[in-house]
Amino acid sequence: MTIETAIEAVRKVLGPRLETTEAARSLHGQNEGYYPVTPPDAVASPETTQEVSEILRICNTEGCPVVAWGTGTSLEANALALRGGICLDMSRMDKVLDTQPEDMLAVVQPGVTREALNEELRATGLFFPVDPGANASLGGMASTRASGTTAVRYGTMRENVMALEAVLADGRIIRTGSRARKSASGYDLTKLLIGSEGTLGIITELTLRLQGQPEAISAAVCAFPDVASAVDTVITTIQMGVPMARIELLDAVQIKGLNQHFNATMEEVPQLFLEFHGSDSAVKEQAEIVAEIAADHGGKGFEWSTRPEDRSRLWKMRHNAYFAAKALRPGCRVVTTDICVPISKLAQAIADTQADMAGSTVKGPILGHVGDGNYHTALLVDPDNPAELEEAKSLAARMAKRALAVGGTVTGEHGIGVGKMKFMAEEHGQGWSVMADIKRTFDPRNILNPGKVVEIN
Amino acid sequence: MTIETAIEAVRKVLGPRLETTEAARSLHGQNEGYYPVTPPDAVASPETTQEVSEILRICNTEGCPVVAWGTGTSLEANALALRGGICLDMSRMDKVLDTQPEDMLAVVQPGVTREALNEELRATGLFFPVDPGANASLGGMASTRASGTTAVRYGTMRENVMALEAVLADGRIIRTGSRARKSASGYDLTKLLIGSEGTLGIITELTLRLQGQPEAISAAVCAFPDVASAVDTVITTIQMGVPMARIELLDAVQIKGLNQHFNATMEEVPQLFLEFHGSDSAVKEQAEIVAEIAADHGGKGFEWSTRPEDRSRLWKMRHNAYFAAKALRPGCRVVTTDICVPISKLAQAIADTQADMAGSTVKGPILGHVGDGNYHTALLVDPDNPAELEEAKSLAARMAKRALAVGGTVTGEHGIGVGKMKFMAEEHGQGWSVMADIKRTFDPRNILNPGKVVEIN
Ligand SMILES: Cc1cc2nc3c(=O)[nH]c(=O)nc-3n(C[C@H](O)[C@H](O)[C@H](O)COP(=O)(O)OP(=O)(O)OC[C@H]3O[C@@H](n4cnc5c(N)ncnc54)[C@H](O)[C@@H]3O)c2cc1C
Ligand SMILES: Cc1cc2nc3c(=O)[nH]c(=O)nc-3n(C[C@H](O)[C@H](O)[C@H](O)COP(=O)(O)OP(=O)(O)OC[C@H]3O[C@@H](n4cnc5c(N)ncnc54)[C@H](O)[C@@H]3O)c2cc1C
Repeated sequence: MTIETAIEAVRKVLGPRLETTEAARSLHGQNEGYYPVTPPDAVASPETTQEVSEILRICNTEGCPVVAWGTGTSLEANALALRGGICLDMSRMDKVLDTQPEDMLAVVQPGVTREALNEELRATGLFFPVDPGANASLGGMASTRASGTTAVRYGTMRENVMALEAVLADGRIIRTGSRARKSASGYDLTKLLIGSEGTLGIITELTLRLQGQPEAISAAVCAFPDVASAVDTVITTIQMGVPMARIELLDAVQIKGLNQHFNATMEEVPQLFLEFHGSDSAVKEQAEIVAEIAADHGGKGFEWSTRPEDRSRLWKMRHNAYFAAKALRPGCRVVTTDICVPISKLAQAIADTQADMAGSTVKGPILGHVGDGNYHTALLVDPDNPAELEEAKSLAARMAKRALAVGGTVTGEHGIGVGKMKFMAEEHGQGWSVMADIKRTFDPRNILNPGKVVEIN
Repeated sequence: MTIETAIEAVRKVLGPRLETTEAARSLHGQNEGYYPVTPPDAVASPETTQEVSEILRICNTEGCPVVAWGTGTSLEANALALRGGICLDMSRMDKVLDTQPEDMLAVVQPGVTREALNEELRATGLFFPVDPGANASLGGMASTRASGTTAVRYGTMRENVMALEAVLADGRIIRTGSRARKSASGYDLTKLLIGSEGTLGIITELTLRLQGQPEAISAAVCAFPDVASAVDTVITTIQMGVPMARIELLDAVQIKGLNQHFNATMEEVPQLFLEFHGSDSAVKEQAEIVAEIAADHGGKGFEWSTRPEDRSRLWKMRHNAYFAAKALRPGCRVVTTDICVPISKLAQAIADTQADMAGSTVKGPILGHVGDGNYHTALLVDPDNPAELEEAKSLAARMAKRALAVGGTVTGEHGIGVGKMKFMAEEHGQGWSVMADIKRTFDPRNILNPGKVVEIN
């Protein structure tokens, strides 16, 4: 068996860092989301780029699938080894290699998590802004083109990765990009790898653009009579050019989940969680403008605070929204949806989603990074009830198709993984076959995360 | 002859819009820069995507080179038909197809120029920020990954193009990206085409991200005793996070050129030209901070003004810096250099360049978009003196190699064209052969702008 041969060859390279125990395999066969546990045949934990290169060379020769694993928090089963093979756990490559405060950049290994990085940066006055809530790895975040609460202000991984080192399927090591803030030198291989979900290469190093910690930060919460008013507040805010750092929608179901999970007493109506970054006066000015816009749309109880503890509490709740939602239905699995639409279509898209859910047996909160036109539902399904799962999938499909109909995309940030493959042809048309051509060029034997993003054999 | 057969077949499609006159050919064989006139065999002026597709299908069958032409302002002979064939003049595809102020986007054909677009947008309160000075076409700007004076604030074409329509070598039409502000859906074909200099596909439509016209704009000029003090002012300004809209360095030689060209009386020392965007109070605050930083570095005569006529005059001078420099030596050709380095290396890089020029017979101004770490020299050479040209090229090569040595790039914004091919291997290593693989996938017969960016046969 080619996979077995590959595993034995990799064992010679890694020694005990190649594991085939049931425990290691099933740990790396888990996923957030609704997919069944799918263990890889082995788990390899490289410590250097050179080791990654050797592993890939072996696997390419043997035709053995290799699926990278960051922290396994992706929501579309992106890191599941659908066709077996070796799970490449990147968590031992967890060093911050270099920080250059003057150039506002840091060089990290892919297993560094965003929280670990920001901890390390604290003393420099700089921070890395991309925040998917989960304490994901930077390699995983780059590979899914992650974003999150702060993308409305600072952009996604696409805008915040300057350069990469990556190992290609045949073991070649490439470096892309540079430390310059811009370049017109050749094809943008950095951006091609970002969002490729480990199907074109394994990221072994990232050069990240950092931001200055703002002089002042304030956070705010505001309750709305209905989702439409909250969304209209967001649209006006964005269109007026207020440089929001975060602007998050949580519907009544989500707030109820948070109240239960955190013993909180928020009014169980749609709420916006907001954050402002800037100078003292700018932050004040922004908060006042948004308070006024919110009031115009029936918002009430707009409170803002610059106290760090209030802020931490707010974002802790937001970051645990997924788990709080899950707890609303003990034992459930979550079908997460993730669409992104032009901002002018956001209110209608959310209204349609609400109508869909009202007519369905499957329920769940709506929440999202609405400043980007990006939102999710977390549909809570009984894993032992196939009819519920089907119903949830069909709700998700309707949302995705509606996003396409208004010029949006079927995923704002979670990536394609398994769940979104079925929309790729419709979203990209001929472009999808071009993606397949690129995949064939990079990985002719289809060893890198086969079956994800494109299908080539 | 395959080229001749292709030309005759294309003539059947375009009628009189396929020209083979001496005049048309030599007009499209010109370049800014020092390359000899290199006329294509024919000039085709399509009006629709469908026509572009038919032309490419013909040329692919016949193996006839096709080189797109926007406005021909690129500086590295990017649009020259080195191997003959058909020049595809995109200037008749010059419609603004759609503007969506609510979503802050516009959809344009590739022949629309940035000035025409901004003229059209004026009433909407929005503008397209990328500003290479020249009134270039948006298709050409996307293809060279252009930037310019405002990139420090608003980013380059990379950040400001959301979606594309493009025709591939075999005539297939693809659409990339969407109208959503972000997406994690598949490989980033938009970013792959941007900066590909017409070697992977012909761009036939662009969806552009727009910006709100700032509430207030002010401009400023400040004189410095030497380049180092001006550069240190820039570095401090950027590191303090002042959101500069423009921050441009012009050295004494450049100022002298402008004085002559515009009958101006600026002190002939290094100067910074600056612009601030924001609310009235923000603009004032920013200008005060920068004035203070400048004063700390020996800057004098820092004047700022919110009067539109002062601003226009300033940026008119800046945009004509190239022509003013050229006029310093009547009859000369210009060898333009264009490197970009991490900001912490900028002062040293410029000092090295100055030292190089001091020890050389070839002279020219230094100027640049220094907030990005990007600067140019415009080396003025006698076209009839091959020794001068060689000397200029070797100065340019030294600059490029030094940029690489400090983690920078050999081109911040002008692209590879002809002049930068020789640095590609050194800048990208194995990555350059990956670029060649991509080219082979997109354009196996090597008909699209052959000999640029990569070399595949
Ligand atoms: C509670 C919760 C909230 C979330 N909120 C957000 C959010 O707001 N925004 C958002 O974008 N996402 C969000 N996510 C999803 C998830 O956090 C992101 O997808 C994240 O980017 C995954 O990172 P990871 O390290 O866990 O990667 P993994 O899940 O381990 O892997 C993700 C993909 O990247 C590949 N990969 C991993 N490392 C590498 C590497 N070094 N080289 C090549 N390929 C690699 C894997 O093969 C896989 O295809 C959330 C998840 C949870 C559980
Ligand atoms: C005075 C002056 C100042 C300048 N300042 C700057 C500056 O500040 N920043 C900057 O970035 N540049 C600057 N430039 C260079 C130039 O303006 C840019 O390179 C610009 O992007 C070229 O646009 P164009 O329409 O003239 O393209 P062209 O020169 O016609 O073509 C450029 C390249 O794009 C390709 N191309 C053109 N249209 C298409 C299409 N539709 N599809 C595919 N490929 C296409 C061509 O084949 C060629 O490879 C300056 C030039 C001058 C003369």
